[in-house]
Amino acid sequence: MTNTETAQNGGASALPGMEEQLENMRVSGDGAPSEEDEDIVNPWTVCGKSDAGIDYDKLIKRFGCEKITPELVERLERITGKPAHPLLKRGIFFSHRDLKFILDRKEAGKPFYLYTGRGPSSHAMHLGHLVPFMFTKWLQEAFDVPLVIQLTDDEKFLWKNLTVEEAQKCAVENAKDIIACGFDKEKTFIFADFSYIGQCPAFYQNIALISRSITFNQAKGCFGFGDSDCIGKIHFPSIEAAPCFATSFPHIFKKRKDIPCLIPCAIDQDPYFRMTRDVSPKLGFHKPALMHSSFFPALQGAKTKMSASDENSAIFLTDTANQIKKKINKYAFSGGQTTVEEHRALGGNCDVDISYQYLRFFYEDDEKLAQIKEDYTSGKLLTGELKAILIAELQKLVAEIQLRRATVTDGVVEEFMTPRALKYNF
Amino acid sequence: MTNTETAQNGGASALPGMEEQLENMRVSGDGAPSEEDEDIVNPWTVCGKSDAGIDYDKLIKRFGCEKITPELVERLERITGKPAHPLLKRGIFFSHRDLKFILDRKEAGKPFYLYTGRGPSSHAMHLGHLVPFMFTKWLQEAFDVPLVIQLTDDEKFLWKNLTVEEAQKCAVENAKDIIACGFDKEKTFIFADFSYIGQCPAFYQNIALISRSITFNQAKGCFGFGDSDCIGKIHFPSIEAAPCFATSFPHIFKKRKDIPCLIPCAIDQDPYFRMTRDVSPKLGFHKPALMHSSFFPALQGAKTKMSASDENSAIFLTDTANQIKKKINKYAFSGGQTTVEEHRALGGNCDVDISYQYLRFFYEDDEKLAQIKEDYTSGKLLTGELKAILIAELQKLVAEIQLRRATVTDGVVEEFMTPRALKYNF
Repeated sequence: MTNTETAQNGGASALPGMEEQLENMRVSGDGAPSEEDEDIVNPWTVCGKSDAGIDYDKLIKRFGCEKITPELVERLERITGKPAHPLLKRGIFFSHRDLKFILDRKEAGKPFYLYTGRGPSSHAMHLGHLVPFMFTKWLQEAFDVPLVIQLTDDEKFLWKNLTVEEAQKCAVENAKDIIACGFDKEKTFIFADFSYIGQCPAFYQNIALISRSITFNQAKGCFGFGDSDCIGKIHFPSIEAAPCFATSFPHIFKKRKDIPCLIPCAIDQDPYFRMTRDVSPKLGFHKPALMHSSFFPALQGAKTKMSASDENSAIFLTDTANQIKKKINKYAFSGGQTTVEEHRALGGNCDVDISYQYLRFFYEDDEKLAQIKEDYTSGKLLTGELKAILIAELQKLVAEIQLRRATVTDGVVEEFMTPRALKYNF
Repeated sequence: MTNTETAQNGGASALPGMEEQLENMRVSGDGAPSEEDEDIVNPWTVCGKSDAGIDYDKLIKRFGCEKITPELVERLERITGKPAHPLLKRGIFFSHRDLKFILDRKEAGKPFYLYTGRGPSSHAMHLGHLVPFMFTKWLQEAFDVPLVIQLTDDEKFLWKNLTVEEAQKCAVENAKDIIACGFDKEKTFIFADFSYIGQCPAFYQNIALISRSITFNQAKGCFGFGDSDCIGKIHFPSIEAAPCFATSFPHIFKKRKDIPCLIPCAIDQDPYFRMTRDVSPKLGFHKPALMHSSFFPALQGAKTKMSASDENSAIFLTDTANQIKKKINKYAFSGGQTTVEEHRALGGNCDVDISYQYLRFFYEDDEKLAQIKEDYTSGKLLTGELKAILIAELQKLVAEIQLRRATVTDGVVEEFMTPRALKYNF
């Protein structure tokens, strides 16, 4: 699995004040850990040191964010009147910044919006890319607020060897997958940088505002840029930061500066929003709030996340039922024993078993999932049987998305991507 | 006089291939001269070591550009069928890159365009700002080609402590002064970055293309950026470079990549276009050609250029006849002797006399100008008399511009600044 794949989403995370930020920037730095046994987590590299993957408790401490506690999940359920999404109940969205502030606003009837995104590096999205969008969709329904989705085609252009046109084409294809998750057109604005920057002067003005507030030194500390990086990359964080400010979307929020956003994203995007949170107050904006997910692991194991660059590490939304079956049977890392006899005697290890881990992301029924875990741990359930459950589950999920995607025409994409008012009045 | 004033125009200069460029970048560097007695010339600092001002011959060598020879001026006259402009005849536009290539194209009937600009840092433009525009107007009439004028309001926002709105307001005010020079609306497109980037996706796409091709190291070598500079500044050279490519103006040139530009500008802007020339071939564009002017000196002397940041160094286009008279009488550095007797005996020094230097820029009659020089040098003409000639000349020039400017309404500015086809077919 390559470690240069960017972001399973383009949304991300944020953090406290200047002092805290500078300290955290240094600690997290360019993903170069301060101690040799630390995991590497930044927008371009995710690599854990243990078979069970990233140590997220350590990461929370290093990044300076807060754990999502059961109490906080309960409060969210109470305020929204909806049972928590499995991704939240099961701790896959495990960390946050300022979620309490957002819940306070919801209680007080004050507006906020959701912001997430994706770096469109390939035509086909994989299951890992789905995770933040599935959760975002649930958040949108639970909170009933506007959602903006950034497709950073310019980022992919800057980091990969693509033409502008290729990057734009990927963005449109990815938009179709995202729309196929079931977002509401009246509440959702999807935009790709290469187009939207050229459509909305207010967006570029916010980009300039942010780019004036961040020194090369800070960008270096936060993202690990070096002297031989191009000036486009060095400037790019301003572009992922700008959608955190409501004034970047005058067609939705008019000129209101006082509407904060909540960003559901994988934790590797945290540096962008840590940086944004640092500059927000001095620019007169609320800090963006965040909810971080853990990574969707590669088929080969939890040390790294699923990557579109390695075909065999990923299940794509374009895969056939047969391809899904073959990939899981052949590549999904097993926590079981080498023989049936041994497995019956010793049981399997769900913490490293990829099939079980995937079920945690996608299997809705809590009770049945607990039973699967018990049976696999005791040795009652064999690896082949566990894989069969996962295969059936993913075949169903992917088939549903393919069915919906078939209805997403270029015209539908254009509607989602046209700057316009949403159904909310500001 | 402050030395932080930027650019008496935003257009500028260019240069050979990679090897040459890297060498020149290092030599010219951040304006930190390789020897202590070298002049400092870059987009942010212009400071000569001698009273006669910058040593332009040395600068040509250091920057790796070519001198505009009398033969080249003759060829230009022959091809355009027009007598050379005084600014060209008198060597104020003294250096070039690839002007021969542009003349070849003109002879062959192949298209090119003119590109110049200005960093709108103040509401009132001064005489120094006028120089490139007066010359550009003449070039446009001589060649009959499209002209694009960039107002880098984003640059001023990044470098100065302005709000976006203040920078935009300066741009509109400056556009009025520029229009008052007499440009033809059918042939001229004026644009300010804060608006145009948000109007034209193709422009941002070219900016991204350039920003991907330049490393921080190269930008550092060329502009002297440091680690504590903001990422907006570090990225900005891509934005001044992008108008060198015809595809940044699809409303004028459609999708044609093969139309080069000629940039009349003061030589302090050279680093931007040296950099652009280096990346142009690998991006599939012609290198921009350039004609460089020397600086319009401050009233206090030729060591630095006229600056809007120091009121007493500059004559503004908003000054009254009386203010012009007072400023010249009080501040214009004199090359004359301290008493009338001494002056009659020893004569004045035109090389350092600001009044004579200003006449070189604005006095049209070659014969009379030669007579003035002879008489001042011999001591026949006194400093007060020389100043009186200049005062009359500038009062007339400024009054004419003020008269034309009074007719430039917001509506006229909007017409010039609306992306549209010009009278040329591409």
